[in-house]
Amino acid sequence: MDRLIDAINKMKNPSVFGLDPKIDYVPQHIREKSFSVFGKGALGAADAIWEFNKALIDALCDIVPAVKPQSAYYEMYGIAGLMTLKKTIDYAKSAGLYVLLDVKRNDIGSTAEAYATAYLGKTQIDGDLYEESFGCDAVTINGYLGTDGIKPFTDACKQYDKDCFALVKTSNPSSGELQDMDLAAGGAVCEKMAALVEGWGADNIGAHGYSRVGAVVGATYPEHAAKLRALMPHTFFLVPGYGAQGGKASDVAANFDKNGSGAIVNSSRGIMCAYRKGDYTPEQFAQAARDEAIRMREELNSIL
Amino acid sequence: MDRLIDAINKMKNPSVFGLDPKIDYVPQHIREKSFSVFGKGALGAADAIWEFNKALIDALCDIVPAVKPQSAYYEMYGIAGLMTLKKTIDYAKSAGLYVLLDVKRNDIGSTAEAYATAYLGKTQIDGDLYEESFGCDAVTINGYLGTDGIKPFTDACKQYDKDCFALVKTSNPSSGELQDMDLAAGGAVCEKMAALVEGWGADNIGAHGYSRVGAVVGATYPEHAAKLRALMPHTFFLVPGYGAQGGKASDVAANFDKNGSGAIVNSSRGIMCAYRKGDYTPEQFAQAARDEAIRMREELNSIL
Repeated sequence: MDRLIDAINKMKNPSVFGLDPKIDYVPQHIREKSFSVFGKGALGAADAIWEFNKALIDALCDIVPAVKPQSAYYEMYGIAGLMTLKKTIDYAKSAGLYVLLDVKRNDIGSTAEAYATAYLGKTQIDGDLYEESFGCDAVTINGYLGTDGIKPFTDACKQYDKDCFALVKTSNPSSGELQDMDLAAGGAVCEKMAALVEGWGADNIGAHGYSRVGAVVGATYPEHAAKLRALMPHTFFLVPGYGAQGGKASDVAANFDKNGSGAIVNSSRGIMCAYRKGDYTPEQFAQAARDEAIRMREELNSIL
Repeated sequence: MDRLIDAINKMKNPSVFGLDPKIDYVPQHIREKSFSVFGKGALGAADAIWEFNKALIDALCDIVPAVKPQSAYYEMYGIAGLMTLKKTIDYAKSAGLYVLLDVKRNDIGSTAEAYATAYLGKTQIDGDLYEESFGCDAVTINGYLGTDGIKPFTDACKQYDKDCFALVKTSNPSSGELQDMDLAAGGAVCEKMAALVEGWGADNIGAHGYSRVGAVVGATYPEHAAKLRALMPHTFFLVPGYGAQGGKASDVAANFDKNGSGAIVNSSRGIMCAYRKGDYTPEQFAQAARDEAIRMREELNSIL
């Protein structure tokens, strides 16, 4: 997690912008141009999203340390969408951003190894190390299957200097249905998951005191954050749910440690669709995103 | 789930073959041919896997009702791998197979909607209904996020006559770390998940008495199967872990209902790599797969 924390410290900005580009979020003038060249189908949509992402990366890469593409919004447009995802990852890395791909993958060990290879490692073919397939800096994972489904990810993190973030307490309204259930042995399901996550990273703690296995802890449940922060002293938090989902800056304070480190807060729609608020024209979407990213940075720094 | 159950009944075969094609599983003569045309990289590997899959589908489509590609083994080879996945899905459907894509997707509602669209539905672009991106008959999902992360999948199942299968008790050695924890309110975590899964399907039960929301229950934990079968009377089971993972036919009996229905058993490596056992040459991999599929069918029918 050191690379991410160094980037946050350098920019004095504990935030990450999400690229969850539904085609509806892309300003009309970009869509029209792409549809005129590639048709009003998946190819046109994928091209419009690529142009949108590129402009947002250009507008934000010197003030925000990390980007979080959400894989679902690319898978949705099939192969064309996935090609845009791959181009977006490569472009973001070339712009110096830490790329955290939100895929929430999970499976038994042998299959988890294939996922870890796909997103963090290098694919081996007949004994030769082949190039990276997606080559991200980090991925999100889901620990419902337990340790042997996670180990291939933690192994890849060590081997390739990467990170992963496991779901602990998610930001959505129904997250409590399972995650808040009390266990007979004490604590809730999400606290048991917290203990597992802290353990999965325990043998690989970096210079800043955080392991390579982070936790996803939603901004929308501040009452959980303080408890989980205490349960996971060596676990860096990825905090979704700020902004469009209702989480406020005051809500996310408890996710940080006493030094104002230990967490990174995500905003997706708030930044991508910033041009729809205030006096911006759709053509000014990149400037609007930058203004919102600066406002968010200042707001987060004000509560730390 | 009626389409799947009809297909099982027609073939008198409650099994599904998994296509988890690591390049190492593909016989040497296929690999060499593909590498000679496309090079020894992702393109060559993806082509070899495509040839392997096609031959297995041809060999099995008249005796096995369903196929379960595991997405990780395609994502691992990047865009080339995903193109092979898409071709495999289309080819399997054209051969009359029910295609259950193993993706274990999970996310908050808005993102789950994008995943449901990608795999079960049709992608909408500027108000027009675009073609299917992957167009499967069913997907696997992970319910750790609760109801609002599942509803987009169940909605898509209703709209497009599709099914989904949520993880309840997985087949891997560590599955008990979270899934077997006892809850203060009684029952284990996997039993709470079972209750959620039974509820998610309750408003959409088909002619055969099973809903569109199935459950993944591993063959490796027969002691859980009977309990979960009783807790989920309207939930069809997908049973992984048979064969290579150690589950025996006698272990899976408890996953079925008293009429010998209610479950489908998966075999991946056991069928894909059948040519490595017995007196087969690598060139006979398709025949070996067919022989193993028939043996498995007879074995399953003998315990029902």
